[in-house]
Amino acid sequence: MSEELLYAGKAKSIYSSDKADELIVVFRDDITAFDGGRKDVIPGKGEYNAKVSARLYALLEEHGVPTHLLALEGPVRMRVRRLTMLPLEVIVRNIAAGSLVRNYPFVEGSPLDPPLIVIDFKDDSRHDPMLNDEIILALGLVTQQELEELKQLARRVNEVLRDLLAGLGIQLVDFKIEFGRDVDGRIRLGDEISMDSMRLWDSRTGASLDKDVYRFEKGDVLSTYGQVAARILGGE
Amino acid sequence: MSEELLYAGKAKSIYSSDKADELIVVFRDDITAFDGGRKDVIPGKGEYNAKVSARLYALLEEHGVPTHLLALEGPVRMRVRRLTMLPLEVIVRNIAAGSLVRNYPFVEGSPLDPPLIVIDFKDDSRHDPMLNDEIILALGLVTQQELEELKQLARRVNEVLRDLLAGLGIQLVDFKIEFGRDVDGRIRLGDEISMDSMRLWDSRTGASLDKDVYRFEKGDVLSTYGQVAARILGGE
Repeated sequence: MSEELLYAGKAKSIYSSDKADELIVVFRDDITAFDGGRKDVIPGKGEYNAKVSARLYALLEEHGVPTHLLALEGPVRMRVRRLTMLPLEVIVRNIAAGSLVRNYPFVEGSPLDPPLIVIDFKDDSRHDPMLNDEIILALGLVTQQELEELKQLARRVNEVLRDLLAGLGIQLVDFKIEFGRDVDGRIRLGDEISMDSMRLWDSRTGASLDKDVYRFEKGDVLSTYGQVAARILGGE
Repeated sequence: MSEELLYAGKAKSIYSSDKADELIVVFRDDITAFDGGRKDVIPGKGEYNAKVSARLYALLEEHGVPTHLLALEGPVRMRVRRLTMLPLEVIVRNIAAGSLVRNYPFVEGSPLDPPLIVIDFKDDSRHDPMLNDEIILALGLVTQQELEELKQLARRVNEVLRDLLAGLGIQLVDFKIEFGRDVDGRIRLGDEISMDSMRLWDSRTGASLDKDVYRFEKGDVLSTYGQVAARILGGE
């Protein structure tokens, strides 16, 4: 094997693989919050996030959204296409919560229709500042056409995930996704889609079913992640 | 007279007038910086800002930009149309500087072409967070059509001021403007356009000719404001 650590993020590590245009993503058990201000290890978390991400990527591919997924190769190992990631965090919101409510006069829990897209600049040293379209283009991060494509893909991802989760008794409040260009220059969904990157509320009780359980100490994180994984993975 | 204080901002006070749809703006000598963290009084500053604002509003009206200006009625008193102000700070940037350089990887002094528009939510308690088009519309602050009109007016204001100042040996780096709706619902430029709200660099020396002289203690504030006023007001 020629696996070499290329990058270690807050909760995932990226390795080279036996093929130049494919990478291995390892979902770790690390969990962080508040811009890295709090860190813990929750054994088993990585496996839930890997399996949920793989399932959601596969579903999105079926609905025409190109992703980096190739195959799950073990409990926490995902083989993916090598992407050149864009330094953008694309956030889609269906219901007002989190930083949107802290920064603007939205009432927590109020629906956002149409869903609201916010794009942040992924730069830890600058604390991921929010962008607008003009700044994105002035920085040359993507072309105008790519920006429109990103937003269209983000809306499509939202529709697919919102419908899936609604059928499982879960409200998709908001989520963060990241995109990259593959070796052919095509925009694909990368990173992860998991309980770390989605804000989920139980449709019946309103209970948090995501990293907010960790952030705000609302209960047992692993058990919550396991419940969501069981609903999403069903009889797998 | 029926003048009653309606609102006291950081550097201007707004009074009712003898006419219901007209107000009196008094440009005070107060100066603040860093989100109100520093405050001083610079006797004479209000007069320079009042005169420069009046001159620039008149010029903009000549170029088809509707403003609130009616008349200067004394050294620091401006009679204006009563506007219902929009809680927006519209910032137009021709050259990278200030918060743009602090928050994003732009090189200070590099040209922005096309000029970059950023809109902040005017809310001191939230520290004027940046908006994007989707948040502006979701908050119902303006209609889609008004948003386009605001941006078009902001670009027009930029062209007029940039050309005027260039001819006076001054680079218009960036500026902040605010808009409101008049009694007929028409969008007009309100607030002020002065050395407090524009970032100006001497074209030859690069020296700051605006509130940055106060912010960063670069020299004598009143003398700097006086020099800019003299260039803009010319033989008046």
